Amino acid sequence: MPDFDFHVSAFAWVPETSRGWVKCLRPRWAFEEAGFAYRTTRLGPGEGGSDGYRAWQPFGMVPAYDDGRVRLFESGAILLRIGALSDRLRGWDDAEEATIASWVFAALNTFETHTSRLTDGLPGAVEAVSRRLEALEAALGDREWLVERFSVADIAMATVLREIGETAVLRRHAGVSAYLARCLARPAFDRALQAQFADFDDSRVA
Amino acid sequence: MPDFDFHVSAFAWVPETSRGWVKCLRPRWAFEEAGFAYRTTRLGPGEGGSDGYRAWQPFGMVPAYDDGRVRLFESGAILLRIGALSDRLRGWDDAEEATIASWVFAALNTFETHTSRLTDGLPGAVEAVSRRLEALEAALGDREWLVERFSVADIAMATVLREIGETAVLRRHAGVSAYLARCLARPAFDRALQAQFADFDDSRVA
Repeated sequence: MPDFDFHVSAFAWVPETSRGWVKCLRPRWAFEEAGFAYRTTRLGPGEGGSDGYRAWQPFGMVPAYDDGRVRLFESGAILLRIGALSDRLRGWDDAEEATIASWVFAALNTFETHTSRLTDGLPGAVEAVSRRLEALEAALGDREWLVERFSVADIAMATVLREIGETAVLRRHAGVSAYLARCLARPAFDRALQAQFADFDDSRVA
Repeated sequence: MPDFDFHVSAFAWVPETSRGWVKCLRPRWAFEEAGFAYRTTRLGPGEGGSDGYRAWQPFGMVPAYDDGRVRLFESGAILLRIGALSDRLRGWDDAEEATIASWVFAALNTFETHTSRLTDGLPGAVEAVSRRLEALEAALGDREWLVERFSVADIAMATVLREIGETAVLRRHAGVSAYLARCLARPAFDRALQAQFADFDDSRVA
């Protein structure tokens, strides 16, 4: 893909506890799986709120994406775009593409809405997440990935599940736990994580 | 589109308080805007949990979608599909399509995760929603819709905002309130709402 100039936004600095958890991890992981080189625009303190950045990402958050042809915000939309451009991540046919899109939305709405409640210790969250994990376990069955091959659906789902990876709720679902471990064992995930760490610039914030 | 056989799942019965709020409203609205005829598969009591339905919608929820070519679940994925098939809802070019996809994800993740917390009266939700409404108001500016023309992005966003439509938080943001009113005043929204109401079958549940 020599004529795409891949480019995502990232924070120049976040506290230690947020390192490895900023959502630019999702496009970074997809780029690593696809084998696409990419650049980052690092936002210094307050730059997320600037008018210039808000014209790209209305909420001042990361990631925002630009490939020289289209600009996107929201990690789900970005994952679908990178997936569509990659021979390694694309579905085999329209049916598989549709299933990938369904699972990306499932991860970021049906799951993340409730896993974030679990992380915050809110009432009812354990039961809500548990029901969804049970359904996910059944949907996975004996398959390695959400669709026949690894796809951006797995990147979306694994990054959401990873947030609750140490909880008893997740550990009760052995199939999902094994699926998450399989996703996070991919070398491209580790490269994405290291790239996020490497991009923080401690010299800029005294 | 004579060779697409549009088809969504819906509940055959829900309590009065849920009527008009079931998420099959989103594809119904998109079909009405597009001018596409569609059929519904109505799920009776317990049918959502059946293996047959779970093979279509892994979480036993509605809507699930089938157009004879692809099957989808998750209302966001369904909206993007209907939008892509409709000359009335499609973006003008790739850039606009990308913006539409970004806003559909923004509605169902950046917004709905927090508006559902507001509906449930959870701590911090007012501030989180308020910040997002402020950003949305700035992003809208003087435009009528999220992109240049009405699109499935507006259907996603309006159905999420409608859930907090009577709250003080929303009313404080006059531009967003006016935007929501503009969306809900569209005749296609009303037709979708009436179609959902008409589909409930009280004779089946004694």
